[in-house]
Amino acid sequence: MSKLSHYDDSGAARMVDISAKAPTARVARAHAFVRMSPEVLAALPNNPKGDPLEVARIAAILAAKRTWELIPLCHQIPLAQVDVDFRIEASGIRVFTVVVCAAGTGAEMEALTAASVAALTIYDMTKALDKAIEISELYLLSKSGGKSGDYERSTNA
Amino acid sequence: MSKLSHYDDSGAARMVDISAKAPTARVARAHAFVRMSPEVLAALPNNPKGDPLEVARIAAILAAKRTWELIPLCHQIPLAQVDVDFRIEASGIRVFTVVVCAAGTGAEMEALTAASVAALTIYDMTKALDKAIEISELYLLSKSGGKSGDYERSTNA
Amino acid sequence: MSKLSHYDDSGAARMVDISAKAPTARVARAHAFVRMSPEVLAALPNNPKGDPLEVARIAAILAAKRTWELIPLCHQIPLAQVDVDFRIEASGIRVFTVVVCAAGTGAEMEALTAASVAALTIYDMTKALDKAIEISELYLLSKSGGKSGDYERSTNA
Amino acid sequence: MSKLSHYDDSGAARMVDISAKAPTARVARAHAFVRMSPEVLAALPNNPKGDPLEVARIAAILAAKRTWELIPLCHQIPLAQVDVDFRIEASGIRVFTVVVCAAGTGAEMEALTAASVAALTIYDMTKALDKAIEISELYLLSKSGGKSGDYERSTNA
Amino acid sequence: MSKLSHYDDSGAARMVDISAKAPTARVARAHAFVRMSPEVLAALPNNPKGDPLEVARIAAILAAKRTWELIPLCHQIPLAQVDVDFRIEASGIRVFTVVVCAAGTGAEMEALTAASVAALTIYDMTKALDKAIEISELYLLSKSGGKSGDYERSTNA
Amino acid sequence: MSKLSHYDDSGAARMVDISAKAPTARVARAHAFVRMSPEVLAALPNNPKGDPLEVARIAAILAAKRTWELIPLCHQIPLAQVDVDFRIEASGIRVFTVVVCAAGTGAEMEALTAASVAALTIYDMTKALDKAIEISELYLLSKSGGKSGDYERSTNA
Repeated sequence: MSKLSHYDDSGAARMVDISAKAPTARVARAHAFVRMSPEVLAALPNNPKGDPLEVARIAAILAAKRTWELIPLCHQIPLAQVDVDFRIEASGIRVFTVVVCAAGTGAEMEALTAASVAALTIYDMTKALDKAIEISELYLLSKSGGKSGDYERSTNA
Repeated sequence: MSKLSHYDDSGAARMVDISAKAPTARVARAHAFVRMSPEVLAALPNNPKGDPLEVARIAAILAAKRTWELIPLCHQIPLAQVDVDFRIEASGIRVFTVVVCAAGTGAEMEALTAASVAALTIYDMTKALDKAIEISELYLLSKSGGKSGDYERSTNA
Repeated sequence: MSKLSHYDDSGAARMVDISAKAPTARVARAHAFVRMSPEVLAALPNNPKGDPLEVARIAAILAAKRTWELIPLCHQIPLAQVDVDFRIEASGIRVFTVVVCAAGTGAEMEALTAASVAALTIYDMTKALDKAIEISELYLLSKSGGKSGDYERSTNA
Repeated sequence: MSKLSHYDDSGAARMVDISAKAPTARVARAHAFVRMSPEVLAALPNNPKGDPLEVARIAAILAAKRTWELIPLCHQIPLAQVDVDFRIEASGIRVFTVVVCAAGTGAEMEALTAASVAALTIYDMTKALDKAIEISELYLLSKSGGKSGDYERSTNA
Repeated sequence: MSKLSHYDDSGAARMVDISAKAPTARVARAHAFVRMSPEVLAALPNNPKGDPLEVARIAAILAAKRTWELIPLCHQIPLAQVDVDFRIEASGIRVFTVVVCAAGTGAEMEALTAASVAALTIYDMTKALDKAIEISELYLLSKSGGKSGDYERSTNA
Repeated sequence: MSKLSHYDDSGAARMVDISAKAPTARVARAHAFVRMSPEVLAALPNNPKGDPLEVARIAAILAAKRTWELIPLCHQIPLAQVDVDFRIEASGIRVFTVVVCAAGTGAEMEALTAASVAALTIYDMTKALDKAIEISELYLLSKSGGKSGDYERSTNA
């Protein structure tokens, strides 16, 4: 089995050396689901000018760029593109993120961090209505680029 | 039904005015679950000096303090205490966070953000072994203090 | 004439001691104007889902909270409320901000920083259409609370 | 007319994909004016060791590097050079900034953000003397590099 | 002997609970020394407009406010005052910092972080002349306020 | 003698232009020493689950990535690797850092900043036991890459 990637031979946590990796185009897509009651969902569009999903989208884009500040062993990856989309369903809101970069590592944690912060922001903006809101299904949908090969989640949402 | 708390009368997003709220002691507890294969779980303690859970704990504490930078409409809450605990189970790792503060709002998003970043950090440190890791069950366990009353999730993990 | 407030007796820059000042309720309102061509203004509402003003509003709220990171001698002021409004006029967009806090200083720079970042974000989102956009009239509209007394700008926009 | 650059086909805000753009040398110069009374201007050099303009210069350089944290849809651009200059005139202080980078986008918002924070810092350090200080004429002076061509403001300050 | 303060009973790192501590006035003073050759010291005042010590002073003030972002288990302490002074000696530059706050903990790490960043900034601005510059004697000079009592270092610089 | 690198011809502080420098592989190693009493040292391993050195290691890695936010004239350098090691000696703890990057400048301040924050974090986690802890011997051990040539400190710790 492969080794945990962030540990050196003595087992101490470290930022893995990526200096020998040539930058390649990388794309990662992630997903999260915010489960909420139909009553809370129905209240979302009642705001004439504002929209919790737009606030969540901006929060997610900003968070993607700051992933390396939040996840200790992540590298500083300049992102080429961040997209955040939402799908409103009967039992909640699905978050989809896409992150593109040209780097020696990355995109995966950036896409997951964006999805997570989008979901937390939706939670924040609806929690006055329902404290039982639950975030789930936070996972990687796909990843391309990089030495470890492409990945596609077998059963996507 | 209550109104979405972050909107003014015209529906524009805003930071809610908490200046009329006297600071009270507040405690929030949150939870997340990181589902991973038994092989990945078995690899965790193989590091003589390091430990993904310790890195996740530090990341979560730092993230709790920066919640207001990540979630746009959150207030800056000086935290009195942040605790992060883990329970290793057969199918993954459970994250438990506790945040204490004395403020006019808060603790809830801080506890959820800490749980989320702890889970993402565990993901980051084990993703070389398994890209299908999934984060789920990110929710509030309980909340006390504040005008809106105490909350205890009916069926806790 | 009063002294420059951020200098000690020897003239070295310093953060002024506010430890003897009891926290009082403070409100500051600021203003900025983003001058742009009618063509650019006309393009703003052509976006079915997005809105540059909503992005600017979120950016301004986040920036208000980070004023002390940007302006070297500002104190860390926990903000109780931040509001950002816009008025579309024939020659551009007017930005209005309100910041409320209970502290030994503050609100003034926070309201101005929010107005400035809102204006810059509008610039960023329209600059592909017009590079001659100009930000002007960035000033304090009013200020209440604190020892130095209330202030109301004589001729407001 | 061109499209607003930060929107996708459905109109949702997003970070534009720059992964297909080869990095090129880019230079942007921006400008701002801080209008203040002659009395406030006269007080500036009365500080034997400190100087509000030096504090503003440092604040502006730091802010240029953090533009992507403040303006939601800006990319993370590693800056090669940041220069900030001032010209004291009879009615106030002129701020000039130059930002150089080699990237697929950028320099423009970084130069404007630097000019804006320099002006706000000057405001902060003189506001005890005059609350009517006004920041104006915040605009791009020139821009070179990048596909959209060079730009020179027709009537510079 | 006392216990390490940042550990709970099971030994896990945590942010200590300060919610039961009433805020008290606290003052901490710290010190650092930057040893450099006489040639480097002689070059310092050769700059007609700039001054490495002014840049270091601003960097130190900003860093003091961000101590809680850098030192994982530090609390977010709103600082009431930060002062940074320098003394040029034959073999280098002495840095003195004073931090004042009214809080349930703090000032100590903030004063040390400010002294450390001031010293690193001086290093950065003189390193082209001398790579053997050494920072030493980074310690607390005194501390007052708080339950653990006052402290005065026996032999100050 | 060489000029101070961060000043332009008029002596104003500025970020040096590195746009003409081709990125090269750079490695810098730095060192710090945290002097503490044998009693404090003996208490370190008494924590069944936690370890101040692991917290310090994570803090140092995070700080290395944020050097450009702390040291005003440092460039934003994407780091390829950060390693932090410790050696426990009779009179204290030695900190060793290694930073690798491929850039037009850098690694030196990043390695020193990491060593400094590691030392400060150790201080923070042991200060309840001993307020006389002193950080010293913060210097560059070696540096390779870049036009100014390699450097090796003559007498390393």
